[in-house]
Amino acid sequence: MIKQNSIEEFLISLSSKSPIPGGGGACALGGAIGSSLGSMVGNLTLGKKKYLSVQEDIQVLLEKLSQNTSELLLLMDKDAHAFEPLSKAYALPKETEEEKLYKEQVMEKCLYDASLVPLEIMEQAYKGILLQEEMAEKGTQIAISDVAVGVMFLRSALLGAAVNVWINTKSMKNRKVAECLNQRVEELKQAGTQKADFIFDKVTSKLQS
Amino acid sequence: MIKQNSIEEFLISLSSKSPIPGGGGACALGGAIGSSLGSMVGNLTLGKKKYLSVQEDIQVLLEKLSQNTSELLLLMDKDAHAFEPLSKAYALPKETEEEKLYKEQVMEKCLYDASLVPLEIMEQAYKGILLQEEMAEKGTQIAISDVAVGVMFLRSALLGAAVNVWINTKSMKNRKVAECLNQRVEELKQAGTQKADFIFDKVTSKLQS
Repeated sequence: MIKQNSIEEFLISLSSKSPIPGGGGACALGGAIGSSLGSMVGNLTLGKKKYLSVQEDIQVLLEKLSQNTSELLLLMDKDAHAFEPLSKAYALPKETEEEKLYKEQVMEKCLYDASLVPLEIMEQAYKGILLQEEMAEKGTQIAISDVAVGVMFLRSALLGAAVNVWINTKSMKNRKVAECLNQRVEELKQAGTQKADFIFDKVTSKLQS
Repeated sequence: MIKQNSIEEFLISLSSKSPIPGGGGACALGGAIGSSLGSMVGNLTLGKKKYLSVQEDIQVLLEKLSQNTSELLLLMDKDAHAFEPLSKAYALPKETEEEKLYKEQVMEKCLYDASLVPLEIMEQAYKGILLQEEMAEKGTQIAISDVAVGVMFLRSALLGAAVNVWINTKSMKNRKVAECLNQRVEELKQAGTQKADFIFDKVTSKLQS
């Protein structure tokens, strides 16, 4: 699993021309960093007298954030696995009509599969943003700035993953399916960035005043 | 150095209530992920016939991006080092007038030092965004989507680091110095987000058409 790599190793592979890890995996990691920052705020709230009334809510939130981080880390690996068959499909021959047809069918399937992973990263990033919204309300004000930072990470994971859906749907022949995927991307992109910017502004307006 | 930790170890410490690594360190890492994605695009452009005329520019860009990544990784450690004296200063006694005055002076110095690190992260993130702008123009179109992803990471590093300056300048007694730092934050925030959004839209409009 990629999460067992050191940060340095990960960045060296990311910088290299090797396609894995690529933008999709980076987004999943970015999202995981974002939700981990939410967990930090939750952990700093646990056991604090001032926040006695929300201890149970924080406990539930912490479980959900931890689940969110784990899902995103799994998606970092899934993204790498989805890319491999796609890169093999690109290399298929297309000399004869038969080969062309076969390549087209394989490509279509691989492009679809490779779109689903970043779309799932978007779903998780959006979920993470909503969890941070609750943390911003209930978490300790001492560390609330980290909710704002976390939300920005989840926002970049969301938008970066959108790009990684588009590069696949763009090449799909079945435009109905492609547009259906793009439609969901658009919804998550709109709702997620709006919510993330709202939380960021709300939290930081207190810091700047 | 933090970069030698595994991704999993890093996320576990980030989630914990231990203040290090915190939001500042996470931003430095996010920025390093962003500029590494730019390096990937550069490395995929090197040696490609179609991009023969820009090989030298790409080589220079790659050096600058690698420098940018290294600086950001160094700042991840610097952020941890700057936080330690600050957390010690918070714990100083303030019973007598003498103690109060001493604490105030130490705090002021530590808050100032702790602001400079995220401000430097912002400077580097902004530099990274400008490097990606050049990569978007000259790099291989095959991997151009990763420039868009990289730019979003650098944007979140920039904004997250801004928050980490504000939490320190907010408590500073010397308002002249504090406002001078906030002024630079505002400039970098405006210019950086505008530029990042411009690059993202420019790159992704080609993918969505």
